[in-house]
Amino acid sequence: MGFYHYLTFLIALLFFAIAEANSNGVAIVRNINELAQDSYGIPGLSHITVAGSVLHGFKEVEVWLETFAPGAATPIHRHSCEEVFVVLKGTGTLYLASNSNPKYPGSPQEFPILSNSTFHIPVNDVHQVWNTNESEDLQVLIIISRPPIKVFIYDDWLMPHTAAKLKFPIFWDEYQIQPVKDEL
Amino acid sequence: MGFYHYLTFLIALLFFAIAEANSNGVAIVRNINELAQDSYGIPGLSHITVAGSVLHGFKEVEVWLETFAPGAATPIHRHSCEEVFVVLKGTGTLYLASNSNPKYPGSPQEFPILSNSTFHIPVNDVHQVWNTNESEDLQVLIIISRPPIKVFIYDDWLMPHTAAKLKFPIFWDEYQIQPVKDEL
Ligand SMILES: [Zn+2]
Ligand SMILES: [Zn+2]
Repeated sequence: MGFYHYLTFLIALLFFAIAEANSNGVAIVRNINELAQDSYGIPGLSHITVAGSVLHGFKEVEVWLETFAPGAATPIHRHSCEEVFVVLKGTGTLYLASNSNPKYPGSPQEFPILSNSTFHIPVNDVHQVWNTNESEDLQVLIIISRPPIKVFIYDDWLMPHTAAKLKFPIFWDEYQIQPVKDEL
Repeated sequence: MGFYHYLTFLIALLFFAIAEANSNGVAIVRNINELAQDSYGIPGLSHITVAGSVLHGFKEVEVWLETFAPGAATPIHRHSCEEVFVVLKGTGTLYLASNSNPKYPGSPQEFPILSNSTFHIPVNDVHQVWNTNESEDLQVLIIISRPPIKVFIYDDWLMPHTAAKLKFPIFWDEYQIQPVKDEL
């Protein structure tokens, strides 16, 4: 084998090495269907941390994929982070108590959640998302700022703000077993 | 009309008023299909600000829905915010230059972008997202932190970091005409 053939062979090897590195791309680009999910004790909830502070070192945002079975709901709660919902499937109801009463949330406004819609929660407003559709799952992408989230949970809409139970920190992704290759 | 009939009438009126307020729920819950889109001068790009700093007063996160026609791509660029992609439709390629060379990005690694996948961009790494699929749109939700985004744009992968063009601030949603009722 002459020098140039050898060189060609080396270059071909190099390209294979690069292709191999690229196939590791699956580690950087993660299949959402293969991510771990958990209900975190909420009946009918499936929570997947798409991008998280523990799993991926995020400090400023987290992204979750949550699926609510018919009848499933978040707790009544508030937090001081920004929160955006993007509805991927299904319908439901948003209950939102604007911050008018200083002592307790009070009776919330009801907003129908439509398919292919988006809504956000004003900072510190008490809210609840409920899959009020009896036959279809509600699937949403949730974006929050400044993880880990610090949540105040209410038993009902008349519970005083001062009695709301603090949960902090909530590392949603803490218990998820993820292959290390998911990391850069 | 007796007092109790009058009271019933008043209560009915009250319920109608509440129902009216609820129908305003469409203002809080926004149909993504009805949001304004723009290409911002990038051929084959459709950008929709789902949740934005100008439109909705966000200070910590923004959410965009971007659709790349076959062959369309972002510029080669970097930024110091956190950025998460969630692929809703199609496939493509992520070009990512890890921060190994101090002077210029250098030849990027290629990662195949799969449908129903997610990936994120390490802070300050130079990157480009390209719809390399010849027949299908690539549609992604993009989440960034700390809007407005401050972007450095490169003509090519060998352009020195010091020569990259600064674009700041980029208010993606600045030119979008949105009905005021979208706001709380
Ligand atoms: Zn919330
Ligand atoms: Zn970017």
